[in-house]
Amino acid sequence: MRVGVLGAGQLGRMLALAGLPLGLEFVFLDRASDACARGLGRHLVADFSDESALEELARDCDVLTVEFENVPSLTVRTLAQRTPTFPGETSLVAAQDRLAERRALSDAGIPVPPYLGVDSEEQFRAAVEELGLPAVLKTRRLGYDGKGMRVLRTQADVAEAWATLGGVPSMLDTMVRFVREVSVIGVRGRDGQTAFYPLVENYHQDGILRLSVPRPGDPVEDTAVGHTARLMDALGHVGVMAVEFFDDGERLLANELACRVHNSGHWTIEGAVTSQFENHLRAILGLPLGSPAPRGEAAMVNILGAMPKREDLLALPGVHLHDYGKQPRPGRKVGHATVAGVDADTMDSSLKGLLAVVGMEDPRRVPVFQGDEDNAGR
Amino acid sequence: MRVGVLGAGQLGRMLALAGLPLGLEFVFLDRASDACARGLGRHLVADFSDESALEELARDCDVLTVEFENVPSLTVRTLAQRTPTFPGETSLVAAQDRLAERRALSDAGIPVPPYLGVDSEEQFRAAVEELGLPAVLKTRRLGYDGKGMRVLRTQADVAEAWATLGGVPSMLDTMVRFVREVSVIGVRGRDGQTAFYPLVENYHQDGILRLSVPRPGDPVEDTAVGHTARLMDALGHVGVMAVEFFDDGERLLANELACRVHNSGHWTIEGAVTSQFENHLRAILGLPLGSPAPRGEAAMVNILGAMPKREDLLALPGVHLHDYGKQPRPGRKVGHATVAGVDADTMDSSLKGLLAVVGMEDPRRVPVFQGDEDNAGR
Repeated sequence: MRVGVLGAGQLGRMLALAGLPLGLEFVFLDRASDACARGLGRHLVADFSDESALEELARDCDVLTVEFENVPSLTVRTLAQRTPTFPGETSLVAAQDRLAERRALSDAGIPVPPYLGVDSEEQFRAAVEELGLPAVLKTRRLGYDGKGMRVLRTQADVAEAWATLGGVPSMLDTMVRFVREVSVIGVRGRDGQTAFYPLVENYHQDGILRLSVPRPGDPVEDTAVGHTARLMDALGHVGVMAVEFFDDGERLLANELACRVHNSGHWTIEGAVTSQFENHLRAILGLPLGSPAPRGEAAMVNILGAMPKREDLLALPGVHLHDYGKQPRPGRKVGHATVAGVDADTMDSSLKGLLAVVGMEDPRRVPVFQGDEDNAGR
Repeated sequence: MRVGVLGAGQLGRMLALAGLPLGLEFVFLDRASDACARGLGRHLVADFSDESALEELARDCDVLTVEFENVPSLTVRTLAQRTPTFPGETSLVAAQDRLAERRALSDAGIPVPPYLGVDSEEQFRAAVEELGLPAVLKTRRLGYDGKGMRVLRTQADVAEAWATLGGVPSMLDTMVRFVREVSVIGVRGRDGQTAFYPLVENYHQDGILRLSVPRPGDPVEDTAVGHTARLMDALGHVGVMAVEFFDDGERLLANELACRVHNSGHWTIEGAVTSQFENHLRAILGLPLGSPAPRGEAAMVNILGAMPKREDLLALPGVHLHDYGKQPRPGRKVGHATVAGVDADTMDSSLKGLLAVVGMEDPRRVPVFQGDEDNAGR
């Protein structure tokens, strides 16, 4: 069986590393000739709008999927007419447009922060009046890792925000004060069967995920899983889906969804019976889903900018390294490391060691995530 | 860092799958253009005696290793002069010649079955007189998976054995009656540090490993690990080494060694904190070794001949599939599956289901391995 993947970044790379042992082959479509999944399958170096490359991908593969959500709807529709493509257009549209995303969450009966769609500066100003400050202006499209958004605290922020973000169709969002951010990774098969990984607690800095810690049995887990299940069913989603929630201490507010494997699920490679990558492949291929049960404690730390010395990471007991093989660049996700398979004391000391090696303060000890703008309303 | 591997079979494939997440790149040398590690690195399609290919491999890589032991000594010596090569010639010679192997084991103070080297039919007949019947005649070289050996029970067997095996330098071995066969996988770093996986109980059929079950804390574990440690030190070995023992109910007799990653260690991919493949790479690269501790129970079943239906395997809870991507052929190792990460009851039912899917009777319930010729004196 051959799986075609739109995008060949680290998510495509980890999909392939999970799929090769299952006897699968991969074809990637990505315009970057140095994309980091290259070498794990055939790599079609082309744009997502390149018709002949899309034709080749669809012809050569048994099933198609994405590792990047901002694939044009038309591309997905065209591909799906020829070859089974998961997730479908409905999921993708909900994931690539912040307003459609918020509506999809809301339509599935999931509480979300108050928001308003704004298509002009006039609408934007009226929306600010209605929702009040602080608030967050977010472009509807191409927003991720803190990009395409502007925190508004004062009228001066309001004055320059619309132009700064380019005057494109946007959404004005309430700035939520939250105690913590959590996510659920679910997977839904072609037959509608579902499986859910434990709730994950996430810590961001500068809008980028830095640390994820699974919290099986967390008091809000059942609620968050229920929300995710309803959303996946509503969208007829097939594959892995992640939903991020703000936990304000009293309730969960859904913030974002991802209709693909997700950074807050990377810990599942060593920390769960079946990884999110394998389960995504099982789902889109119509194979039985694997158990999402955790295997003891785990924690995942993103590595940004440049890889630390390999020996410093590997000297820490229970640390598993995932170097994406990317060129270093400030702020770029170049890898991650997961601590798993060790007892609680070792877990704690290795995680501390890992944070030290990647040059990051332990965010669990400092309340940077409480109402801090770094973490607000992404 | 780039790792060169002599051989590109399933062991090379699994080395690469373990090494890619560490940020390593691979170059394989194998004369088979369809070797199953192809596609996970550059593949030099050439014979092990091809000087220009060897030159290219040594020039392009930071370290070299083998996934196949029958590499000519001269090849390894030449490569090692140019690029660090592990295991070294001493380990390789001990692994590729059954007489040298037996001597290496014996020299390290490890009990072995009585044996005699035989270079002629006359010596062979004298050796039969000395050791008595039953016995096993084994060629010194190119013996694995039950190949290059002949069980001798009667004088009629003796009469035809020498000619049947081609009259090549051989070893006459005692036929050991054993209760079970066990193995130890150890790993030794460039700095002499070692780590050992739990004792593994192995079940063979027709001379081929079918099932491996780790038995941490087994009563003979300490003895077997001690033997393996002495052998690795004596050979100055670097990398993974496996030693197989017969357990006759009273003591351990070393039977075979492998100076590479070993089939009885495949369960470590999901069943141990660090897999044998990752630890072999860590060792040869001079990186800190990872923990070999088991993560709960595990069992590994080899898949011979042809792959069963993927969905039948993946429907079993806790089953992890490793399809080597090989063409089917009777008796060929085309993959393996490991049960891991589930509770003891699920473990037992999934293992039974797995054995049923691969069409194999549960060898733990039938005493095929006690004095049966299928399992004697490999």
